[in-house]
Amino acid sequence: MNILEIIEKKKNKLALSTEEIHFFVNGFTAGEIPDYQISSLLMAIVLNGMDDREIYDLTDAMLHSGDVMDLSELGGNVVDKHSTGGVGDSTTLALAPILACCGVYVAKMSGRGLDFTGGTIDKLESIPGMDIALSEEEFRKVVKEVGCCVIGQTGNLVPADKKLYALRDVTGTVDCIPLICSSVMSKKLASGSDIILLDVKFGTGAFMKTKEDALLLAEKMVNIGNRAGKSVGALITDMEQPLSDHIGNALEIVNIIDVLKGKKSRLYNELKEVAVKLLSLTDKYDEQSATVAFEQAIESGRALDKLAEMVKAQHGDERYIYHPELFKLGEMLPVYAQADGFVTAMNTAEIGRACTALGGGRMKKEDPIDYSVGIKMDVMLGSEVKKGDVLCYIYHNGKNVEHAVKQLQDAIIIGSERPQPHKIAYAFVDKDGVHLY
Amino acid sequence: MNILEIIEKKKNKLALSTEEIHFFVNGFTAGEIPDYQISSLLMAIVLNGMDDREIYDLTDAMLHSGDVMDLSELGGNVVDKHSTGGVGDSTTLALAPILACCGVYVAKMSGRGLDFTGGTIDKLESIPGMDIALSEEEFRKVVKEVGCCVIGQTGNLVPADKKLYALRDVTGTVDCIPLICSSVMSKKLASGSDIILLDVKFGTGAFMKTKEDALLLAEKMVNIGNRAGKSVGALITDMEQPLSDHIGNALEIVNIIDVLKGKKSRLYNELKEVAVKLLSLTDKYDEQSATVAFEQAIESGRALDKLAEMVKAQHGDERYIYHPELFKLGEMLPVYAQADGFVTAMNTAEIGRACTALGGGRMKKEDPIDYSVGIKMDVMLGSEVKKGDVLCYIYHNGKNVEHAVKQLQDAIIIGSERPQPHKIAYAFVDKDGVHLY
Repeated sequence: MNILEIIEKKKNKLALSTEEIHFFVNGFTAGEIPDYQISSLLMAIVLNGMDDREIYDLTDAMLHSGDVMDLSELGGNVVDKHSTGGVGDSTTLALAPILACCGVYVAKMSGRGLDFTGGTIDKLESIPGMDIALSEEEFRKVVKEVGCCVIGQTGNLVPADKKLYALRDVTGTVDCIPLICSSVMSKKLASGSDIILLDVKFGTGAFMKTKEDALLLAEKMVNIGNRAGKSVGALITDMEQPLSDHIGNALEIVNIIDVLKGKKSRLYNELKEVAVKLLSLTDKYDEQSATVAFEQAIESGRALDKLAEMVKAQHGDERYIYHPELFKLGEMLPVYAQADGFVTAMNTAEIGRACTALGGGRMKKEDPIDYSVGIKMDVMLGSEVKKGDVLCYIYHNGKNVEHAVKQLQDAIIIGSERPQPHKIAYAFVDKDGVHLY
Repeated sequence: MNILEIIEKKKNKLALSTEEIHFFVNGFTAGEIPDYQISSLLMAIVLNGMDDREIYDLTDAMLHSGDVMDLSELGGNVVDKHSTGGVGDSTTLALAPILACCGVYVAKMSGRGLDFTGGTIDKLESIPGMDIALSEEEFRKVVKEVGCCVIGQTGNLVPADKKLYALRDVTGTVDCIPLICSSVMSKKLASGSDIILLDVKFGTGAFMKTKEDALLLAEKMVNIGNRAGKSVGALITDMEQPLSDHIGNALEIVNIIDVLKGKKSRLYNELKEVAVKLLSLTDKYDEQSATVAFEQAIESGRALDKLAEMVKAQHGDERYIYHPELFKLGEMLPVYAQADGFVTAMNTAEIGRACTALGGGRMKKEDPIDYSVGIKMDVMLGSEVKKGDVLCYIYHNGKNVEHAVKQLQDAIIIGSERPQPHKIAYAFVDKDGVHLY
């Protein structure tokens, strides 16, 4: 078996065997197969696809490229949630303390920003002192004692994904269902949770551009999860506009704090949808009791306290949670509408990219992040605006500001007709199949 | 402009602009764009193609990545011939002295073996002392004084192709018309010839498997050459069996010497076809006078003397040309037919690979070559054989012999019906279009 034969096979649209898939994953992880051969193979996979058996084998090969975490000491009900990435998506950081208040464990490993999407870990690091690289021992201790912990991927879990993900990011091979599916599921299966909710996003701010693609990805991931003996569900959610009206690292933390204090918003509604579905996948809740538990966690103030408790356990400065005014933010600059009308569409990825260009994300792996910059939206899809009204505010420190103003004015599209309202979620997928809303 | 946007564009089947093509070629040549991004782009080009304008731009960008040789001091009629690669194809080494005898200059830069194909330069090096890395000054001097010279590619010509070719070879991106076309034509245009004949091969021993693909490649290359102001023609030739009955480095030189002494064979017929077409592209000959000149060059013994003269000028031992028995050859082993019938087909690439495995070619770039090994065919397509007849002889030094016997018995297919005879050439393409034979 050799890598050239494997590349040729996929180039010629043939299915790779289980052995061939394990061969290239193991060879790449061990550094025996060079980047340039794998990137060629990845592009062939992007353009010629993989069938369900190949995707399962790829997931399985990646899963077993490193350690697999065993959290059975927690006695079950360890939950995980994964978003396929969007703009203004700070769900995880609000969800973890809420779920911990509902009596399930959240042992979460999150990622950094990628292209136009922010990263949970980057957002967390805007809290001074926050340690997202705990040892496995510390991580287990925080999960057990606090009920939730959010860290970066540890060194020994799914090393194949780390290498593949880094390579995909710089070779134009990110948006590919088999590769996304195996990347997500290998990490989810390796991280030791029993119950997994996938938040699969579609639209102008997601990697999947259409509902249909999102649904296809969701079905494939749920199948893999079930095949591996986990309880897995997937929500298909809308990313035709930023998920929260705050985009940027510190800004999103500030917003989460407001939501945990009970502020109703798009993010609150999405959080509720996700939390209820996830709790219903456990054997502790049905949808009704889950809804009650969710609302009580927030209204009682326990969720906010739990966030502070988690931050403190991860060596972060928990005063920031109770005094969000401590967060240093950039200078504010309003962006104005240039016409009368309705906000009919948003190029959400461009809004994310504007934030990245301000310094809120990375263009290259080694770029530093400016946690204080971002965008606060003042309109959403369907908002009526007059020329000269504020569309959003830019928080900046002088970098790429003019470009961001132009980018945001172009990304927020003003038309003459009020658009149809957008639902938060369009479907739920579980072992019983697809449930359309 | 950045490489990721360029990869994304080609992944999405869009045409790259002239600027984008120059950007990636120059960036890769300068070492600013890494292998893994270019290999991803190459696979996208293989699977999504390039239009004629893109192929021309790619050729032009590669051509100008280094020096362009100016041979105008020779006063025109500098000819070049390029074969797309086959098995037992030693045309160049016989053609160069014949053409020099006909009063045109042959200033040829040739390549090494690739996969199942032999390399002209490797074959030349089986002559002791032969220097295929002359300085540009020496090269010009030999061309001027002898009339012909065959060396390897020099360091400054088309560095983009050197890097791209090496990468394609190890990333499964060799068999792609736009990439083959730009690779061949950038080198041909950079090497300073005025008149170029392309020998585009198809069949089981060629990179192009069908006549149709070969014709498409030929048309594209002829168009590019004409656009660049050269006189270019292309022959479409059959490679459903080895071109000469000798395959291997020293063996092919021995065979050429026989042909230059007047031995009639498939190689002789192909040589005549190529030489006559090439001479007809100059302003010195028509087909009739070219045929006479070709025959006289051989019959007079001048072509053989010219080969010896060229070998000597390149510091090789010319005694080998007059005394081919000096070549050291491996031990001979006959390979027998296992059934009665006719040779109905050959897996010609496998015959080439058998020679490579014996040590006659490289599996890896740094492998040494054993010049003394090879295969001498005793049958051709249509030959009638009885079980136990000799199909071919292996010349070996003990390496992979049993495997080669099996490989050759499998590659020479014996069936019950006599196959249709194979023509040498099926079409000629020039500025006036395609002329089918």
